[in-house]
Amino acid sequence: MTHTPIRIAVLGCTGSIGCQTLDVIEQLPGRFAVQSLAAGRNTKLLAEQITKFRPRYVYGEARSPDADAAATAVGAVWTSMEDMALADDVDVVLVGTAGAAGLMPTLKALEIGRPVAIANKEVLVMAGHLVRRAMLAGGGELRPVDSEHSAIWQCLWGEEQHEIRRILLTASGGAFRDFDEGQLAAVTPEQALNHPTWKMGAKITVDSASLMNKGMETIEAIWLFGVPMERVEVVLHRESIVHSLVEFSDGSVKAQLGVPDMRLPIQCALAYPERMPTPPSPVLNLGAIGTLHFGEPDLGRFPCLRLAMESGERGGTYPAVMAAADEVAVLRFIEGKIGFLDIPVIIEATLEKHDGTADPNLETVIAADEWAREKAEALIAGRAS
Amino acid sequence: MTHTPIRIAVLGCTGSIGCQTLDVIEQLPGRFAVQSLAAGRNTKLLAEQITKFRPRYVYGEARSPDADAAATAVGAVWTSMEDMALADDVDVVLVGTAGAAGLMPTLKALEIGRPVAIANKEVLVMAGHLVRRAMLAGGGELRPVDSEHSAIWQCLWGEEQHEIRRILLTASGGAFRDFDEGQLAAVTPEQALNHPTWKMGAKITVDSASLMNKGMETIEAIWLFGVPMERVEVVLHRESIVHSLVEFSDGSVKAQLGVPDMRLPIQCALAYPERMPTPPSPVLNLGAIGTLHFGEPDLGRFPCLRLAMESGERGGTYPAVMAAADEVAVLRFIEGKIGFLDIPVIIEATLEKHDGTADPNLETVIAADEWAREKAEALIAGRAS
Repeated sequence: MTHTPIRIAVLGCTGSIGCQTLDVIEQLPGRFAVQSLAAGRNTKLLAEQITKFRPRYVYGEARSPDADAAATAVGAVWTSMEDMALADDVDVVLVGTAGAAGLMPTLKALEIGRPVAIANKEVLVMAGHLVRRAMLAGGGELRPVDSEHSAIWQCLWGEEQHEIRRILLTASGGAFRDFDEGQLAAVTPEQALNHPTWKMGAKITVDSASLMNKGMETIEAIWLFGVPMERVEVVLHRESIVHSLVEFSDGSVKAQLGVPDMRLPIQCALAYPERMPTPPSPVLNLGAIGTLHFGEPDLGRFPCLRLAMESGERGGTYPAVMAAADEVAVLRFIEGKIGFLDIPVIIEATLEKHDGTADPNLETVIAADEWAREKAEALIAGRAS
Repeated sequence: MTHTPIRIAVLGCTGSIGCQTLDVIEQLPGRFAVQSLAAGRNTKLLAEQITKFRPRYVYGEARSPDADAAATAVGAVWTSMEDMALADDVDVVLVGTAGAAGLMPTLKALEIGRPVAIANKEVLVMAGHLVRRAMLAGGGELRPVDSEHSAIWQCLWGEEQHEIRRILLTASGGAFRDFDEGQLAAVTPEQALNHPTWKMGAKITVDSASLMNKGMETIEAIWLFGVPMERVEVVLHRESIVHSLVEFSDGSVKAQLGVPDMRLPIQCALAYPERMPTPPSPVLNLGAIGTLHFGEPDLGRFPCLRLAMESGERGGTYPAVMAAADEVAVLRFIEGKIGFLDIPVIIEATLEKHDGTADPNLETVIAADEWAREKAEALIAGRAS
């Protein structure tokens, strides 16, 4: 059987999600075409990817002679990420960029009714209301790439949104799930950067340990699935086998499970509505795993989760302020300037100072983000002095 | 919001599934109408149900003056179960009868493209190939009522049948899951009739303890979901919270969970594709449950599971022979005539003597059933002498 390849724009191609996306595409010959590659500053890797995947469109936040030569050799055209999102010959836009750079391509693709496979946390946390509005207006589709949100999405196939009673986001509990407050206060950056299950960047690893990452995922969930925060709960599940669950109005609960491998949700988002077999696809052996544990998160020991969920419930500019304050605080924690338990203190103090705006436009969100960074830095400086 | 009531024919209305079905209907006023009530020999309960639910059509294997009077009082007409299945003013046929009596109404309803909510194990075990053929020919729909099959069905909503890699049927493991062979040989009927989670009849409780019930469920699964036996596996799960799972071609696994309450899958089958809220709907609290256990069944200690799966794989008249021999052996076990571990011995010996027919018609299936009963009785008598 021959298939028409699904044409993918890979934004953030040199990052972790981008590389795993290209890995998935390589494992399924003939099923996908890499139409666009957009990178940040890693021009060396971009050049290699251009040569290997022969895209039609390329973008680099930085350019280099070897990336230019590679593009010329395969006949690729340099363009912007927005134009990649809008190009006629693209079927799915994968947004794997970090930070605000992913927002405009996401909005543009959704506005013209194009599916977006979204792995960018910041876009949904800061501007989820704008993303959802673009999706509803344009008829585009958000396909989550994150394992938890992919699980929820898969559980919702064939279901009705208004029949969702609860979304149950699972959390491994982070590196310090069994620490008491005294131990948490003494956590070093080295300890925080050692995540038990997933290999990730420094910022997200600290956010996992503080449960801020899970808190941000609750905010992503309300925009991805159109439910209020009161219908979202976090369940501790240390094995990271059950990736999340959905409870419906009749009391029935669906869960999606799998071995922890990001390539699974990535493939799911690219191939939807088809499920493609993968050559190395790992098999879940529940009998061998034996036991799955579940518990309730301790919001006392992990206030970042509470702060995120409260910000999500308040909406407006609060999630952006919360995320910006967290980014500053985590950076200073990694530098050894503040303690692990100072992270939520800084975030909460920043939120308290914020005079929020309801239904902000993009400029207002960005202004709130900038305000929060300055405020958080000032609060940290104030503590240090 | 007003709804048009969904009109239900309840076949087997005085049995366990029938009574719980009427309970579900009563809990959701205005959503369902009891169009038909078909009972076995419990005329007293039938008379009460007729008075309460005011059906248009009634049937009783036995008749009584009070049932007749009740029917006359509400203007109900006595008819056959087949005519109930075929009546123009019925939307869903619930088949909760035990034994072969459910087969003809099931086939008739499916042949005219009508949904059948099926709780009758024997129909699918003995004549699953005929049921599936009627369904595919008539465009009718099989909606499983059993909690395990309902779980699989729900996991398949929005999915493609050809993308099923494995069906994982969960099994509580029965009352003797931790017994060694010596303990199993000494099991008394009283011990066997004490099931840890579900309250059921004597035959099915013994079948649960021997894992024959789970074996029959594997056969039901191949006909309900159109997969070969090699794609069906049994997973031990003592908590009966995960009701079953499906693994897809991309390695993703979906599960359906819930508190053990038969009214949930019954409601799901009646209300499909809607999920209706139930007033007493029980909430699954995973955090409070804490731990879910999984394991592999021991086919050495529980040979009934192996015998059932092998019969299902051979097909033809073998499942009917296996089920008939089991029924005889379980009855004689309950009477104290043979030991618990003699049950699989009798079944296996009966199967070995059987000269199977491929793709049997109904008469051939019934003849094989009768042959197997006689053969099993003879084998038991031969052992006793």
